[in-house]
Amino acid sequence: MRVFNFSPGPATLPLEVLEEAQGELLDWHQSGMSVMEVSHRSRAFEQVAAESEADLRELLSIPRNYRVLFLQGGASAQFALVPLNLAPPQATVDYVDTGHWSRKAIAEAGRHCKVHVAGDAGGDYTRVPQQTELRFTPDAAYVHYTPNETISGVEFGYVPETRGVPLIADMSSSILSRTIDVSKFGLIYAGAQKNIGPAGLTVVIVRDDLIGRARPGTPLVFDYKAVADASSMLNTPPTFAWYMAGLVFKWLKRAGGLAAMAARNRSKAQALYAAIDGSRLYDNPIAKDSRSWMNVTFILKKPGLDGAFLAQAAAAGLQGLKGHRVLGGMRASLYNAMPLAGVEALIAFMREFERQHA
Amino acid sequence: MRVFNFSPGPATLPLEVLEEAQGELLDWHQSGMSVMEVSHRSRAFEQVAAESEADLRELLSIPRNYRVLFLQGGASAQFALVPLNLAPPQATVDYVDTGHWSRKAIAEAGRHCKVHVAGDAGGDYTRVPQQTELRFTPDAAYVHYTPNETISGVEFGYVPETRGVPLIADMSSSILSRTIDVSKFGLIYAGAQKNIGPAGLTVVIVRDDLIGRARPGTPLVFDYKAVADASSMLNTPPTFAWYMAGLVFKWLKRAGGLAAMAARNRSKAQALYAAIDGSRLYDNPIAKDSRSWMNVTFILKKPGLDGAFLAQAAAAGLQGLKGHRVLGGMRASLYNAMPLAGVEALIAFMREFERQHA
Repeated sequence: MRVFNFSPGPATLPLEVLEEAQGELLDWHQSGMSVMEVSHRSRAFEQVAAESEADLRELLSIPRNYRVLFLQGGASAQFALVPLNLAPPQATVDYVDTGHWSRKAIAEAGRHCKVHVAGDAGGDYTRVPQQTELRFTPDAAYVHYTPNETISGVEFGYVPETRGVPLIADMSSSILSRTIDVSKFGLIYAGAQKNIGPAGLTVVIVRDDLIGRARPGTPLVFDYKAVADASSMLNTPPTFAWYMAGLVFKWLKRAGGLAAMAARNRSKAQALYAAIDGSRLYDNPIAKDSRSWMNVTFILKKPGLDGAFLAQAAAAGLQGLKGHRVLGGMRASLYNAMPLAGVEALIAFMREFERQHA
Repeated sequence: MRVFNFSPGPATLPLEVLEEAQGELLDWHQSGMSVMEVSHRSRAFEQVAAESEADLRELLSIPRNYRVLFLQGGASAQFALVPLNLAPPQATVDYVDTGHWSRKAIAEAGRHCKVHVAGDAGGDYTRVPQQTELRFTPDAAYVHYTPNETISGVEFGYVPETRGVPLIADMSSSILSRTIDVSKFGLIYAGAQKNIGPAGLTVVIVRDDLIGRARPGTPLVFDYKAVADASSMLNTPPTFAWYMAGLVFKWLKRAGGLAAMAARNRSKAQALYAAIDGSRLYDNPIAKDSRSWMNVTFILKKPGLDGAFLAQAAAAGLQGLKGHRVLGGMRASLYNAMPLAGVEALIAFMREFERQHA
């Protein structure tokens, strides 16, 4: 029996996609092999690569002057690879600090460049800064921000205007959750394990003119130009994760693309926030205009109930609700693959739990 | 219907392992989730991590003063990460050049250190150098070699003696194919996609005293010390590939471990080389003491037959036999998961093809 899995990543995947992968795991497209066993240089796998890129381009309306790279190492590797690829050592780079993942990105960038924190939103990370609060360095090599912070559950409702300075976004936990205007960004990167597919794949979408600036010491397999020139096959790519991403992209297209997904994600999040706001037991401290669609955090105002909440939720088939260790409390991650039925089941459970413990 | 897949990597996996993964792909260990959907921080996945490391340690008899790291990026990433982690910029590093992958490693190391080629075996890479032919730099930061070259099919029958200089081995295509004495090595690395599991996972086995020397600019997620300190969970690891590697390690243990595997691999290779040597149509140019157990290359001496050979082999369920584009000819990769039955089927096919075209 499948449960509803609210884990922040690795996260729930579409059941249809898992069933498709399971069905052909021993014999993929009548090849007599698993897709895991197929050469990345084969025509069959090249088709996986080409179709997945085409589908991702279609879903995100990626302009032609952007390259799509399929890499390894996760977003945390990009924390280093973005400065190594885009900024000389003496450059100043601007970072917006909205929480845990912003700070990780800032710490790593600080090992490679001079970092200027262009804005935050006060100490407790319960909202994102407004455009008017951002103070950019005019000659920064780039501006980096984290559109959605998975741990606290804050999300930008707007794309910062950087006046020509390339805007870099760690979209690990929000990519494909709604439509975006890719042309506003210099580079977007995302670990796969939330809205794309299994862990072990990283997608980088980068504007042509930002490619080819890597520092001499950048490992070749992480030099965007070398990777782009080799169509992400400079060395053996993570073929199974890439294949799964391709299946997820096709599932998204069948589901109506990102406009449909955005409507669904908005409904899911609104329903859960409304349930929290309408309760006496639960509380979400995030400013309303900064609330994440993907990661809904909440606390139980009555002390000592967290363990019982998690245990009874698990028994009811609602898994992965424990908040991040640095923050505590609860968190429900509502990525694309979480159906509305899962959110409804969670809300029903929360109401019943509150009734029992009021 | 499953075929015999002789691809050099990604390569054939044990059927038992694929069946196990398929059986639990939607509901892993009664979790109600796929293993792909489970948090890497969960107790269940921590057990996968711990057991896979324990099993690998048992299989290779890894001494206690070595750490095992599970990374991303493939061996090609290690081409850079080995010098960045082990050698200061002004250091000299020794590399033995035995073919395509040695040269790739040398080219990347040359971007980070001064490389001295400590030995090769003449221009055509049809043998590995003898110990007496190797000329090491006394104060080299390390000596690097490629125990098995997948493209030409040459393999060391001995471990070079480096008189105290740490010996580094790219074992991507030979790890787990036979017993080795890990204590002779400073560091062993291997991409997973030949003898370990699906592409997207890289195993690094490194002696304690070599950890903690990374250059300041090394990306944190690729600093061996940071990775070791975080038990390879500094960021989200490629959980599915890691899980598959764990299943492969258990399969190897059930199959009798590396002594049994070595006997089986020797038999497979000897049978195929004997068939080649005993034929008039096929030829393998590699010196007998340097012939690879894992990658058996051969040419068809009669011109114009390659296409027919490959097409008829494919029709007979023998896939992935085309040699690497830089070398041409044929190559049969006989990794652990290739059963003897596959080699016998290939030999029978080759004999029949020779009979038809003699």
